[in-house]
Amino acid sequence: MKQKITLKHIARELGVSISTVSKALKNSEEISVDTKEKIQAFAKLYNYKPNNIAVSLKNKRTKNIGVVIPDIVHHFFTTVFRGIEKYANGQGYNVIICVSDESFDKEVINMEMLNNGSIDGFIMSLSAETQQKNDINHLREVVDQGIPLVLFDRVTDDIDCDKVILNDREIAYKATVKLLEEGRKRIALATTESYFNVSEKRAEGYKQALTEYGIELDDNLVLVLPYDDIKEEVINDFFEREAVDAVLSVNEIFAIQCMSVAKKRGMKIPEDISFIGFTDGLLSRYSNPRLTVVAQHGVTMGEEAAKMLIDRVEREIDGNDEEAYRTHIVEATIIERESTKN
Amino acid sequence: MKQKITLKHIARELGVSISTVSKALKNSEEISVDTKEKIQAFAKLYNYKPNNIAVSLKNKRTKNIGVVIPDIVHHFFTTVFRGIEKYANGQGYNVIICVSDESFDKEVINMEMLNNGSIDGFIMSLSAETQQKNDINHLREVVDQGIPLVLFDRVTDDIDCDKVILNDREIAYKATVKLLEEGRKRIALATTESYFNVSEKRAEGYKQALTEYGIELDDNLVLVLPYDDIKEEVINDFFEREAVDAVLSVNEIFAIQCMSVAKKRGMKIPEDISFIGFTDGLLSRYSNPRLTVVAQHGVTMGEEAAKMLIDRVEREIDGNDEEAYRTHIVEATIIERESTKN
Repeated sequence: MKQKITLKHIARELGVSISTVSKALKNSEEISVDTKEKIQAFAKLYNYKPNNIAVSLKNKRTKNIGVVIPDIVHHFFTTVFRGIEKYANGQGYNVIICVSDESFDKEVINMEMLNNGSIDGFIMSLSAETQQKNDINHLREVVDQGIPLVLFDRVTDDIDCDKVILNDREIAYKATVKLLEEGRKRIALATTESYFNVSEKRAEGYKQALTEYGIELDDNLVLVLPYDDIKEEVINDFFEREAVDAVLSVNEIFAIQCMSVAKKRGMKIPEDISFIGFTDGLLSRYSNPRLTVVAQHGVTMGEEAAKMLIDRVEREIDGNDEEAYRTHIVEATIIERESTKN
Repeated sequence: MKQKITLKHIARELGVSISTVSKALKNSEEISVDTKEKIQAFAKLYNYKPNNIAVSLKNKRTKNIGVVIPDIVHHFFTTVFRGIEKYANGQGYNVIICVSDESFDKEVINMEMLNNGSIDGFIMSLSAETQQKNDINHLREVVDQGIPLVLFDRVTDDIDCDKVILNDREIAYKATVKLLEEGRKRIALATTESYFNVSEKRAEGYKQALTEYGIELDDNLVLVLPYDDIKEEVINDFFEREAVDAVLSVNEIFAIQCMSVAKKRGMKIPEDISFIGFTDGLLSRYSNPRLTVVAQHGVTMGEEAAKMLIDRVEREIDGNDEEAYRTHIVEATIIERESTKN
């Protein structure tokens, strides 16, 4: 049984991380000479070929697009995926998805698996762990090989490629101003760990609005929640500790959960407290009260990402890709429902 | 630029459907001799090879699993996917997903794309259109080629392969009995078109319970809703026309939407009307009132499907696959919340 040797095999065989293997094969100075020599010798022995795709790509067009996203449970990512499919299918392309589950290793493994000649290019949003480690060798490799790559939403400034992002900073500013104009003074920010570039941008917009309205920033009003498995007690303790009259949430799940706890504590929405959440999903539409949201226009983001990728693939095939990389900004909008005063 | 010829190319080139091409290449009697000759000649001319995968599989193991599901928006399918990933990753397998969007053509195209040697086997739930047409040549082909296939949830009796299903009939019976025991007399069934085998089985359980409790079946109480883009007026007209004191819904979205309309009409839940929906998703947990549901244990279904597939892949590689096909039945349970009288 012949099996292609992959980064994962090498890592397992030598008892090191995938990231170490990837760096060693690129001769990174972060890795000790000893480890590098061992890994490079092993890769040579088993005939590891990182570049086999670039070769196959030049010869064959697959009309397939590979999409790597952090999860398929959040409404936002599934909506972007629908946009990608809509545009790609219209152009005769098929779409394959892999899910990183917020794991760096899974992101690398998935990319390596897809990057064996079965796709023409990648559309990706980075995993939490990739953003946390800021290890982007696997992306650099793809770009170096000439494989078209479009990043959306969770992007990195350290990779030069096409990108589709939301005007996160501006819309968070606008949402916060809306709450301030309602007369709110103690506005909480329900957010994720700050290594998500989008959460960071949203926090900047939130802070800018408060500062402009002469409200002193209070770190105690920033509620950092885990991405999965949120405990109700954590939210309850927060409300117990802080007098809060509004919450801006970086996703709809946090907002719905905070609303649920606030209601249990006897607070009236929006009389006593207002809520705005990012993502216009089913949860927001059927919650009680219905949630005022920042609509991220995921379908538009997906369509734009697919268009950028396919345009580049087709220019490359025509041997005519000299276009500079672009960053397309999708403008979010606020949809007013029942969780804010209108 | 060399491109592998696919069913889709042949269909487009000759202006016929993918289904016709597939049947013609299998020499089906449903297709006229003239059309068959034309398609077969074209396939020969362009060297179409339907069997290239079987060959590659025998030589190489990819440690990848292909999953083809109808959508990634419904909580149930994403949950099953998580179960598949959980088990498969634990065994060192990666998972690739393609989405059929309920389209027969997309299902066929996706399978053909994955089935080029990049995966060891398929886990699938059939698209609405595939169930409606009952055209399963593409599944038969995969099975004939010796590629392991596990069907889950939306399965067909016409294909002999491993299957994972829910005890749909029994749990729908139990849910209906629960409503009857509450004293409900006019129980509606909110369902999809009957060509979904799961909806049909749930309808059988619902009818059996009513009959056993001496309640005459009334087709006017069956509300058939489209899978997407449900109009509130349709539900409102239904409540206007029929006096209903309970609703059993085949998915959580229909249940949530019916609850929303009932509340607008001034009905009290669960005093005036009870609701039970299939799928224990986020919507059910955060709805108001919180929805009593049939938990389908999607993660368990996914894990079981992955286990069946991987066991078969590994037996086959060992040249030792004589195991008969199995159908594993996952037992659903009812989770009581606020939309029924307890």
